Amino acid sequence: MKLYDFNRAPNPRRVRIFLAEKGLEVELVPVNLFRMEQLTPEFRQINPSCTVPVLETDDGEHISESLAICRYIEAVQPEPRLFGADALGEARTLMWNGIVEHEGMTAVAEMLRNLSPGFRDHVFPGPVPYPQIPALVERGAGRTAQFLDRMEARLADSSWLAGDDFTFADIALLVTVDFAKWVEIDGREGRPALAAWHEKISARPSAGA
Amino acid sequence: MKLYDFNRAPNPRRVRIFLAEKGLEVELVPVNLFRMEQLTPEFRQINPSCTVPVLETDDGEHISESLAICRYIEAVQPEPRLFGADALGEARTLMWNGIVEHEGMTAVAEMLRNLSPGFRDHVFPGPVPYPQIPALVERGAGRTAQFLDRMEARLADSSWLAGDDFTFADIALLVTVDFAKWVEIDGREGRPALAAWHEKISARPSAGA
Repeated sequence: MKLYDFNRAPNPRRVRIFLAEKGLEVELVPVNLFRMEQLTPEFRQINPSCTVPVLETDDGEHISESLAICRYIEAVQPEPRLFGADALGEARTLMWNGIVEHEGMTAVAEMLRNLSPGFRDHVFPGPVPYPQIPALVERGAGRTAQFLDRMEARLADSSWLAGDDFTFADIALLVTVDFAKWVEIDGREGRPALAAWHEKISARPSAGA
Repeated sequence: MKLYDFNRAPNPRRVRIFLAEKGLEVELVPVNLFRMEQLTPEFRQINPSCTVPVLETDDGEHISESLAICRYIEAVQPEPRLFGADALGEARTLMWNGIVEHEGMTAVAEMLRNLSPGFRDHVFPGPVPYPQIPALVERGAGRTAQFLDRMEARLADSSWLAGDDFTFADIALLVTVDFAKWVEIDGREGRPALAAWHEKISARPSAGA
C-alpha cells in the first residue's frame, strides 16, 4: 500500500494518525497542494476529485476519502479497533465523525479557503476555479465556535468522543482542532473539557504523524 | 427501532430507501422542518445538531447521521448487503458515498438554502441563524454541474456507482439527483449514462420510500 499525502493538510493527517495507531508504515507519496500538484494530469488520473489522501492498494486500486481509506485499513489490520467494538460502537463512531466533518471541519475549511491568499480564485481542490466569498469567513467563524461549544459539552460527559474508547472520531476532532489554529482559533481557550481531551490525545505518539 | 423523519428532505429518504431494500419497517416519527420543529426543546434533547434522520434504537439510544444509521441497520440485518461484499467493496462504497456527499449533496444544498425564501436568515438546520449569501447560488450551480458530469463519466463505465453491486452509494446519488429538481436542475439532461442509471434505480420498489 502507499498513500498520496500532503503533510500540511488535515485530511491526510487523519490517515497518518490512523496508520500510526495501527502500527503500520506505508510509503508516503507527497502531493504539494500549495503548488497545485493535485491538478497535474498524472494525479487527476489517480483521483479526478483532486483531493488527498488517496490510498493505493497492493492491487493498484486507488481509494480516496479518509473514511473509506481508514475502514479499509481497519479490515486489513483489525487491532487495535478504532471503529468501536460492536455495531453500536461503530454507529457512535460514525455519528461523531460525521458531526465533526459536517459541523467542524467544513466550518474551519470555509474560513481558511475564503481568507487565505493561497486559495484566491480557487477555493476548492478540484480543477474548476471558484472565487473567494468574504462573507463565508465570518459565517465560518460563527459555525466553528458553535461546533467547539458542542464538543466541549460532549467531552465534559464522555472521556472520548464516541464513548469510553478512543476511535476514528477522536482523530477527526484532533485534526480539526489543530487545523483551526491556521485561522487563529484556539478551541481550547475557555473550554476546559476540550483542553483536557486535547492534552490527553496529543500525548499519544500517533499525534505526531 | 424508530426513525425521526421528514418526508420532504433528502437525508431521511436515504435511510427510508435503505430500510426498504432491507425489507424492514420501522415506526416513522415526523419532524416538520418547514415548521422548524427540529428546534423544539424536545427534539434538541434527541439531537442537538437539530438534523433528521435520527434512529432511536430499541435501547432508546439516538443515532444521527445517515451513514451511521445505515451501517447500524446493516449490522442488525446484514442481507442484502448494501456496503459491498468485502473490505474493498466497502471501501469503494464509502468512497463513492463520500464523493456524492461532499461534491454533490453539499452543492445542491448550498443552492437551495441560499435561494429559497423558506431558508432566509436560517440556512442551517441548527439553532443559530445564518443569513443567505446569494453568491452561493451561482457557486452551487457550478459545483452541481461539475459533480453531475463526474457521475456521468463514472456511470458510463460502471453499472452501479461503486462497481457491479447496488450499494448505499447509489442511494445517496439517487437522493441527490432527485433533490436537485428542487433547484430546477435535471441531472439526466444531456447525460445518457446517468439517465439510464436513474431509470433503472427508480424502478426499484424502494425508490418510492
